[in-house]
Amino acid sequence: MKLYEQVATTVKDRIDRGYYREGDKLPSVRGLSQEHNVSISTVQEAYGLLIDDGIVEARPKSGYYVLQQQAPPELPETSSPVSQPLVVAQWQKLQHMISEYGSGETTKLSLAMPDMNTPTLKPLIRISAELSRTESLRILNYEHANGAAELCRQVARITIDSGCRIHPDEIIITSGCQEALSCSLRAVTEPGDIVVVDSPSFFGSVQAIKINGVKALEIPTNPETGISLEALEMALEQWPIKACLLTPTNNNPLGYSMPDENKLRLLDLLNRYDIPLIEDDIYGDLSYTLPRPRTIKSFDTEGRVILCSSFSKSIAPGLRVGWVAPGRYREHIMMVKYLASLSTSTLSQLAVAEFIAQGYYEKHLRRMRKNYQRDRDAVIGWLKHDMPPGTRISYPQGGYLLWVELPAHMDANELNEQAKREGISIAPGTLFSASGKYKNFMRICCVNSDNPKIKQAIKTLAQICNRMLNENLLPD
Amino acid sequence: MKLYEQVATTVKDRIDRGYYREGDKLPSVRGLSQEHNVSISTVQEAYGLLIDDGIVEARPKSGYYVLQQQAPPELPETSSPVSQPLVVAQWQKLQHMISEYGSGETTKLSLAMPDMNTPTLKPLIRISAELSRTESLRILNYEHANGAAELCRQVARITIDSGCRIHPDEIIITSGCQEALSCSLRAVTEPGDIVVVDSPSFFGSVQAIKINGVKALEIPTNPETGISLEALEMALEQWPIKACLLTPTNNNPLGYSMPDENKLRLLDLLNRYDIPLIEDDIYGDLSYTLPRPRTIKSFDTEGRVILCSSFSKSIAPGLRVGWVAPGRYREHIMMVKYLASLSTSTLSQLAVAEFIAQGYYEKHLRRMRKNYQRDRDAVIGWLKHDMPPGTRISYPQGGYLLWVELPAHMDANELNEQAKREGISIAPGTLFSASGKYKNFMRICCVNSDNPKIKQAIKTLAQICNRMLNENLLPD
Ligand SMILES: Cc1ncc(COP(=O)(O)O)c(C=O)c1O
Ligand SMILES: Cc1ncc(COP(=O)(O)O)c(C=O)c1O
Repeated sequence: MKLYEQVATTVKDRIDRGYYREGDKLPSVRGLSQEHNVSISTVQEAYGLLIDDGIVEARPKSGYYVLQQQAPPELPETSSPVSQPLVVAQWQKLQHMISEYGSGETTKLSLAMPDMNTPTLKPLIRISAELSRTESLRILNYEHANGAAELCRQVARITIDSGCRIHPDEIIITSGCQEALSCSLRAVTEPGDIVVVDSPSFFGSVQAIKINGVKALEIPTNPETGISLEALEMALEQWPIKACLLTPTNNNPLGYSMPDENKLRLLDLLNRYDIPLIEDDIYGDLSYTLPRPRTIKSFDTEGRVILCSSFSKSIAPGLRVGWVAPGRYREHIMMVKYLASLSTSTLSQLAVAEFIAQGYYEKHLRRMRKNYQRDRDAVIGWLKHDMPPGTRISYPQGGYLLWVELPAHMDANELNEQAKREGISIAPGTLFSASGKYKNFMRICCVNSDNPKIKQAIKTLAQICNRMLNENLLPD
Repeated sequence: MKLYEQVATTVKDRIDRGYYREGDKLPSVRGLSQEHNVSISTVQEAYGLLIDDGIVEARPKSGYYVLQQQAPPELPETSSPVSQPLVVAQWQKLQHMISEYGSGETTKLSLAMPDMNTPTLKPLIRISAELSRTESLRILNYEHANGAAELCRQVARITIDSGCRIHPDEIIITSGCQEALSCSLRAVTEPGDIVVVDSPSFFGSVQAIKINGVKALEIPTNPETGISLEALEMALEQWPIKACLLTPTNNNPLGYSMPDENKLRLLDLLNRYDIPLIEDDIYGDLSYTLPRPRTIKSFDTEGRVILCSSFSKSIAPGLRVGWVAPGRYREHIMMVKYLASLSTSTLSQLAVAEFIAQGYYEKHLRRMRKNYQRDRDAVIGWLKHDMPPGTRISYPQGGYLLWVELPAHMDANELNEQAKREGISIAPGTLFSASGKYKNFMRICCVNSDNPKIKQAIKTLAQICNRMLNENLLPD
């Protein structure tokens, strides 16, 4: 055992024995260094290890503390959307929201943006600059229609962590997960078809369904275990369903991961009814605990699961690099992707491949998992403290999104309007439903909770909510 | 007038007076420098100017020559495709072809690849590497859904050269022209609709039509003036046509630019029948003569022309940067693009914007226009010399593609098979038709004719054609 590991073990031991409790301040670096007669940097390394292990947190300009493990918040109930296939219509609101990308000063709790200031992304920048020079002729050229061979290899390797065995030749690289989803949908449905979705559900897939002239059938979804398999089975009996589109792991917006048992039962149902599953795994690699949950794809023996993902949440969205493992629909999806955009930016593909190959992706994920779990706990803490009674909050197992149920009768669209005047935006719940449900819900992104602006934004949001409630209580 | 301009004028004068004829060797640099008592570099600059003006060519290790202006070749006749809306079905063959992207040793006359070895692209590489560093946070992030503001500005500026006045806010950036075409088509048609196309026609649009469940109605097309307006009018009378998709300037594969008069008459027809035009202008900036031809969009006062283009042919395809000027269909196309892939690679967008803003795009185009005209003349010369009698060749006014009609009964698919065994590929004509026409046609790319491999490939192709013809003449 190395010196710093010894120091870390001692500290951890004391925490385990209750000598230091959650939230307690730990000995100073200088103090520990004298106690153990080791160098300052050894103690710092020891604390670094404990931080990585999620036991200790560093508070800037204050010192090290035992990390607070919060009790989970009160969860929203299982959703009960309208049980009928619907043509989706929410484009105007969505447009409003996306017009915010890249714009100015607003604190955009509305957008699902990963932490891009982290030092673990620095190597990506260096790699991108280097490739511009060393591979200049190649990056000017179209890549193979199915993707750069190096990248397909790395993607296939990554999917091993979710239990898959996918050959690199099977992978199709896309311009983000949105293109993966959109092409998969187009390949397995025709206008007029019905597709089953979880509810609430990522607005990008809900709207992609709409634009393909397909109808969405929303299935009640539990905030801890995912879609109700009973409701799904009933729907399969009742409707001529053509495909199923789900985000079963670190769901957007709810944050749950379906238990393996449910994943298996779901697959079983789909096998029985012979229906393809489009499995959106974009947040899968951001699970707080290792090993990460298995994909449904990893259980699939019939090639019916189309696994879609991208590096938009786990690295950075501006690269626009996603992928599909298309199972038995490979040829059709390949054709749709080719005719949608021929191929994907060559430099982006090579940069991601190199970032993974050199081991930076894993390092980056290790750090992000801890950070996002810390962010979840911090923001949930503030919400519990400040939001009006009756507020319920999801308790994600990965990723960085929170789904917040406001007291009944509150309108999240109105909340958003008022928040904007104070320089804050949220994603109103109605965006996440084909039937315009979830009026009193919002989704917020809790990345970078150590930035005081985020804490302030949450406080302000809570104030607005309280004000809105009080105004409603007043006689007209 | 500068010194080198004076020297250039003298030489040009002598050529104009017939003192030097086409193909003649011109005085050596040393000779001219002594004659005019100027420096070697001044003479080199003078020759550079004459090369830019398309009057002189430099032959490596030999010297400067008066450029040969060839007589145009014998052109293919106006096409006469099946006059009936058709469901397109050629994916297998196309797949075969696209599997060649980026692959090994073959001389790929089949693919429409610009010259990417030119020194005028060096600044792009430098800019891309620099942006990776200076804009590192921004390139990690999603860009505005309609595109980076800088790039929209540059695109709007560029379109002035084709007679347009488009506000930067109108532009939507896409992942290549294919995405622009595909989203435009999806926005203005529904499955079952009929769309009018030129014939032969770029296979990417023909197939995109198919994948949208739309039918293609091919209109006879003249290799010098484009689609027959008479035939188009008849079709508009006869069928419930929903949109028109054309490449009216430096057409792929035929190379013609429709005369302004025809463009105006076409627009007039579309106005009368109230039909949107998707105008593919991807080769527009590669016209051999300046000013470049006007787009139909530039005549449009009703917002019915959807102008689609990209930098894949005029800069490099691996960037995947294209754009649409969507006219009155903006909102719908914006939505389709967003749900197809959210946004386009940020680094690619910024790199192209910077490349244009710093004046490198114009310099690059100036050089490419000359080079591609030289390539056209060289390759047409070899074809005229070596191909069997009865061969007809298009005479493009821009771009770098040739459409070659082989003697009747020859099968270009068979030619392609035989050519591949000798390490050469061509694009068989049937790819360019919804009805499987153009069996005895091929499209070849004539970039880099100064590379001896290209000349050799053309010679080999001609040999194979002659062999195939002879074998057919033999009794069984
Ligand atoms: C669940 C889910 N799927 C897909 C996407 C689209 O991701 P990309 O940016 O890779 O296209 C997102 C983006 O927010 C998402 O949250
Ligand atoms: C006429 C035409 N339109 C569109 C495209 C697609 O271009 P991009 O690579 O920009 O998607 C091509 C590419 O070959 C083309 O020739």
